[in-house]
Amino acid sequence: MADTPRRPTIGVVGGGQLAWMMAPAAARLGLPLVLLASPDDAAAALVPDVIDGRPDADGLRALAAACDVLTVEHELVDLDTMEALEAEGHPVRPSAATLRVANDKIRQRELLAEHGVPVAPWTVAADLAGIEAFADEHGWPLVLKRPRGGYDGRGVWIADDVDAARAVVDEVAGEDLLVEPKLPIDLELAVLVARRPGGELAIYPAVETVQVEAMCREVVLPAPVTNELASRAEEIGQRVAEAIGSVGMLAIELFVVDGEVLLNELAARPHNAGHVTIEGSVTSQFENHLRAVADLPLGATRRRVAAAVMVNVVGEEDDPRDHLAAGLDVDDVSVHLYGKAARPGRKLGHVTATGPDVAGARQRATLAARRLTGGTPA
Amino acid sequence: MADTPRRPTIGVVGGGQLAWMMAPAAARLGLPLVLLASPDDAAAALVPDVIDGRPDADGLRALAAACDVLTVEHELVDLDTMEALEAEGHPVRPSAATLRVANDKIRQRELLAEHGVPVAPWTVAADLAGIEAFADEHGWPLVLKRPRGGYDGRGVWIADDVDAARAVVDEVAGEDLLVEPKLPIDLELAVLVARRPGGELAIYPAVETVQVEAMCREVVLPAPVTNELASRAEEIGQRVAEAIGSVGMLAIELFVVDGEVLLNELAARPHNAGHVTIEGSVTSQFENHLRAVADLPLGATRRRVAAAVMVNVVGEEDDPRDHLAAGLDVDDVSVHLYGKAARPGRKLGHVTATGPDVAGARQRATLAARRLTGGTPA
Repeated sequence: MADTPRRPTIGVVGGGQLAWMMAPAAARLGLPLVLLASPDDAAAALVPDVIDGRPDADGLRALAAACDVLTVEHELVDLDTMEALEAEGHPVRPSAATLRVANDKIRQRELLAEHGVPVAPWTVAADLAGIEAFADEHGWPLVLKRPRGGYDGRGVWIADDVDAARAVVDEVAGEDLLVEPKLPIDLELAVLVARRPGGELAIYPAVETVQVEAMCREVVLPAPVTNELASRAEEIGQRVAEAIGSVGMLAIELFVVDGEVLLNELAARPHNAGHVTIEGSVTSQFENHLRAVADLPLGATRRRVAAAVMVNVVGEEDDPRDHLAAGLDVDDVSVHLYGKAARPGRKLGHVTATGPDVAGARQRATLAARRLTGGTPA
Repeated sequence: MADTPRRPTIGVVGGGQLAWMMAPAAARLGLPLVLLASPDDAAAALVPDVIDGRPDADGLRALAAACDVLTVEHELVDLDTMEALEAEGHPVRPSAATLRVANDKIRQRELLAEHGVPVAPWTVAADLAGIEAFADEHGWPLVLKRPRGGYDGRGVWIADDVDAARAVVDEVAGEDLLVEPKLPIDLELAVLVARRPGGELAIYPAVETVQVEAMCREVVLPAPVTNELASRAEEIGQRVAEAIGSVGMLAIELFVVDGEVLLNELAARPHNAGHVTIEGSVTSQFENHLRAVADLPLGATRRRVAAAVMVNVVGEEDDPRDHLAAGLDVDDVSVHLYGKAARPGRKLGHVTATGPDVAGARQRATLAARRLTGGTPA
């Protein structure tokens, strides 16, 4: 592993809201950022140093030449080039190997089941016969997932019966599908883990994530579960981080089913489930991502408040910036608007409320988020 | 008063650390910023839109042409031009009239004493005779202040006797001096007030400020005083804000002498005493400055934590960025480095620690700040 300079320039692949939220943390720590992004991307408004390009071989090599350490805000990068850069001695954090696991839901299950991480029953099927065989054992409905490239519900289907499964098989045209039973989920959790190159870890307390139409809509800190269940989730977080050798932030999404915690998905980067750490925790996930990637001591992951709830501002017709006054006219909310053009279904921002209890924080964050999308004041 | 557009572009005079800390707050709210500054200034690293100029007539007019609302991060601006811009209908917040009072310690005392704000005994003297007459009544030592342009102890002298006073009179060569007794100060407080154009106010709980060599070194939230004394300070804050018609943030520095709260100085902008609000309060002073200036509802000023202590990182020989790892290796501190070149005596950053009690937070913030300037780890 190459040594990290004392004050490394950090190259970030991507310029969306995750890079946008890294920017103030990097500025505070005096760590220069350079982005591989479009000059129109959200983060370019806060980071003057932007390489206009895509995460292909040319783009990644240009970024590597401009930075000391390379990291990502999304996983859709050319991993062969990332691997080649590593082989040439360029620090890539997380590594290409970690990203390969995070990017591939099948590889994830294979590797993590070996490391004792509990996962739901699963199989890989490339045709209807394989899916039907799994259904014979576990029953319908099933969840069918593309192993790569899905997010916010894209690349995931619920098949209630064999006809629905056939339609998915036809759509993916011979690609492998990950097949799982549709579980009776009690609730969903996420655990965030920051990890340095040498293995030092910092684990955030588990949060509850609430999905609406397969998109994360709400995050609750602390998760409303027993200490035992939260500890179990946090242990899984640590086990996963160590198994895949993550560096930087790692988000582990988990299902709680019948009192058991099961792996759902991974993301080897800051994650929507961790936005609540900006106000709710001593150190935000964005700051800890940069500290980990720059191989600096990690910050405390403890809660700074009794309760914090984050609600996403998801685009409808209106631009939330046109409703800022209404959104801010709610006591004790922190509004984050990403500066992206409004489009139905697009994540345009989020609101976090903190306070002595979850119920009050949720009510305030929900009200502000609804007002920002032009909803009737309640 | 001109109407403020729904999403105003805010023009900021200055590009130092105060504008630098406004930038993330502005980004989160989707409020575009434009700075009148040098492209080398700290804030230019986070704000792409910089008008390279000085706060003179040309600079201010260029800034006004590029923004909907004009504000300041320092008071050394051409007030005649600010006044002319107001007369032409351009929103200037705070107003030139407010800045004239904030800039002039004599005018301040005249106006505020009329409004019932308690001030120490004072006089204005342009020669030694006037100073001696005041000393006959109040005794030596005296504090002599230039009415305008001083900060961090510049333009302030302690005169122990008539010879020392003569040296100051000679130095200022016939300028008026504000003369006050050197008070037996128990401690110093600051109160921060956000105020909108229509008069809506939000007052932060009083903080204690600790000065070293006349420069603010440490700020403690909440101030270690009785509720009665804190309320008295906050009442004075409100009275001052209303008397001078401030818009945006106003910082009121106060002395506690013999259980009485007395006005010391004003600043009509975010202030070093309010950096602690970033981690310590529901809404930071920087966000509330922008909300006030943009005529948006103000955010809650309540504490988010039991205790928060800020310690300034004041330059010695070393660049604090070279000691980042040591500074971050202290539990529960938030490090803010302004990206300014190191110079002895220059404010290069600050550290805030939060926690259940002031003593622990102070210890951690002090340790991290000392390490960042190359001090021996304790």
